[in-house]
Amino acid sequence: MEFGLNFFPDVGPDEKSAQDYWTEALHLTGLCDDLGFSHVRTVEHYFHRYGGYSPNPLLYLAAASQRTKKARLITGALLPVFNNPLKMAAEIAEVDAMSGGRLEVGFARAFLPQEFRRMHVSLDESRARFDEGIEMVRRLLTEEHLTMAGQFRSFEDVTSLPRPVQLPHPPFWIAASSTDESFINAGRLGYGLMTFTRGDAQVKRWLQLYRDAWREAGHPGQGRVMISFHMYCAATDDSAHADARSHVEGYLQSIVDANSDWASTSSKDYPNHPKMIAAMKSVTYDSVVAGGGAWVGSPATIRKQIERYQEAVGGFEIASLQVNSHTCAVDKAEASMRRFAAEVMPHFR
Amino acid sequence: MEFGLNFFPDVGPDEKSAQDYWTEALHLTGLCDDLGFSHVRTVEHYFHRYGGYSPNPLLYLAAASQRTKKARLITGALLPVFNNPLKMAAEIAEVDAMSGGRLEVGFARAFLPQEFRRMHVSLDESRARFDEGIEMVRRLLTEEHLTMAGQFRSFEDVTSLPRPVQLPHPPFWIAASSTDESFINAGRLGYGLMTFTRGDAQVKRWLQLYRDAWREAGHPGQGRVMISFHMYCAATDDSAHADARSHVEGYLQSIVDANSDWASTSSKDYPNHPKMIAAMKSVTYDSVVAGGGAWVGSPATIRKQIERYQEAVGGFEIASLQVNSHTCAVDKAEASMRRFAAEVMPHFR
Repeated sequence: MEFGLNFFPDVGPDEKSAQDYWTEALHLTGLCDDLGFSHVRTVEHYFHRYGGYSPNPLLYLAAASQRTKKARLITGALLPVFNNPLKMAAEIAEVDAMSGGRLEVGFARAFLPQEFRRMHVSLDESRARFDEGIEMVRRLLTEEHLTMAGQFRSFEDVTSLPRPVQLPHPPFWIAASSTDESFINAGRLGYGLMTFTRGDAQVKRWLQLYRDAWREAGHPGQGRVMISFHMYCAATDDSAHADARSHVEGYLQSIVDANSDWASTSSKDYPNHPKMIAAMKSVTYDSVVAGGGAWVGSPATIRKQIERYQEAVGGFEIASLQVNSHTCAVDKAEASMRRFAAEVMPHFR
Repeated sequence: MEFGLNFFPDVGPDEKSAQDYWTEALHLTGLCDDLGFSHVRTVEHYFHRYGGYSPNPLLYLAAASQRTKKARLITGALLPVFNNPLKMAAEIAEVDAMSGGRLEVGFARAFLPQEFRRMHVSLDESRARFDEGIEMVRRLLTEEHLTMAGQFRSFEDVTSLPRPVQLPHPPFWIAASSTDESFINAGRLGYGLMTFTRGDAQVKRWLQLYRDAWREAGHPGQGRVMISFHMYCAATDDSAHADARSHVEGYLQSIVDANSDWASTSSKDYPNHPKMIAAMKSVTYDSVVAGGGAWVGSPATIRKQIERYQEAVGGFEIASLQVNSHTCAVDKAEASMRRFAAEVMPHFR
């Protein structure tokens, strides 16, 4: 099992400046290789403290490529719906080049009504734009003199530059959150699966759907599953909770705020979101910890949390850890990472 | 007078891989602060070896921010015509944050017919999209809860994130190439001016138009002018020319190839381009050196080339140097930079 770092900025200018946020993230990223974390990941969001400091994950990964030598650099995730595939393919290949072939590319459909509204894109075109965008990027990375006519974009005789280092293209991931179709689709396409914690039985079922689709499509192995967690490791459970509680709560509040439009929004492309988002309001720090979404405690406690979660969902390959949620101080995050690397990670090699 | 580094990739996969190109550029960038070069700059182009390894200059500048501590990081230039201003503003502010407020933003209109054709944008909309894009980016960086309705883009109630480190926004530059209007416009707006070498009298006249417009608009000082040059410094003139000739020629050939569509293209927004591009075909290595566009020779020779050029165009503030054109080997580029820094730069402090 691998453990990586997921930098999800969940602060606004009144909480922590972008300069402080990214300077701290780069410092923690610089520890990544030595401590044995296997990836660095960040997000694409806009206009809101929930992710809005990272409008293009490739920018941070380009910077992170110069603070690491081994870590995989992962978009978690790019949003084809808000991007021109001609630009996405070229930017992906450039970061693949600058990192010496360490880029991996997660794609997501986006889900915040305010982003669609401000970008002037219909929520009801989400799935179609997502499918078309990924396929255009894949073909731009793998083919030359390419002509494609899509529903939303078209181009003629394009050889995208740069050509990628990793052939046929950097590994792709699909972020799936709430419909069987999304999990099955990721497996069928042979891409990695990014998701997050919910009811264990539900996640276990989705991972099974993904792996079944993977095998049925004839791909070798069982695919790769990456799940996001908060992580805060301290000497004792009490001191860990005392430090982590307000930061995880800050993150949870930023999600609820960012999704508030769903109370008055519906879309055929997001049949489960109004319900799912309504349920988020009842999520608390204690329920996240109890449900396995936040690994918080002493090393011994976190080891048990990981083992329980692995068992509950039927195993997964990669944990992507938010180690500096909300206004967590960078020295606290560093101490937590060091303790986790020394006393937790060795048990899962 | 300041000297900086302009990384303009002018190679395709058959000449140098993007991984090699960017690895070498990052190595040279890492020398920048110690040697006293004041900026790192790169370009935005697509689909062709003339610049196509750099589809988003902010990606390289993000990486370069981690190899430098003092250098200014300059887009030379972003192309509003191919970008969503909502994304541009946010990405600018993120790199401003990651670099601790060292970003400067050059904008250009783009001018390659193949880029417009493949991006499905009309050449005849070039100026209007450029003007609208810059103004939207400027206001997104400086205002909150912004609503704008443009000819090409509109948005409502947007507070762009992150907020920039440099207030009111990172310094702006305008790349001007061939019309009086472009030079006057840059001065009137109070932005820096990026240009390149042509006939000395023509450039001198344009710089005067820029500075006159700058003063007439009431801006303090006389503005800032940045001019691009090739630079290759060796122990003797002969050895410098022996090394530099083929690399500058490779660059010149890539320009001619990239612009070949102008032979069969006309656009109201580019009245002078067909003629200007036709003239480029007669440009040779020797004519570029004689005209001051390539500083090549011993330190003593280059000092004279710089003094002559300063005199001929009426002075300018910043030279942006292409030190690794075409397939120039990185160790040769490094030796040239070191010699230039030691034996040329001190004479212009």
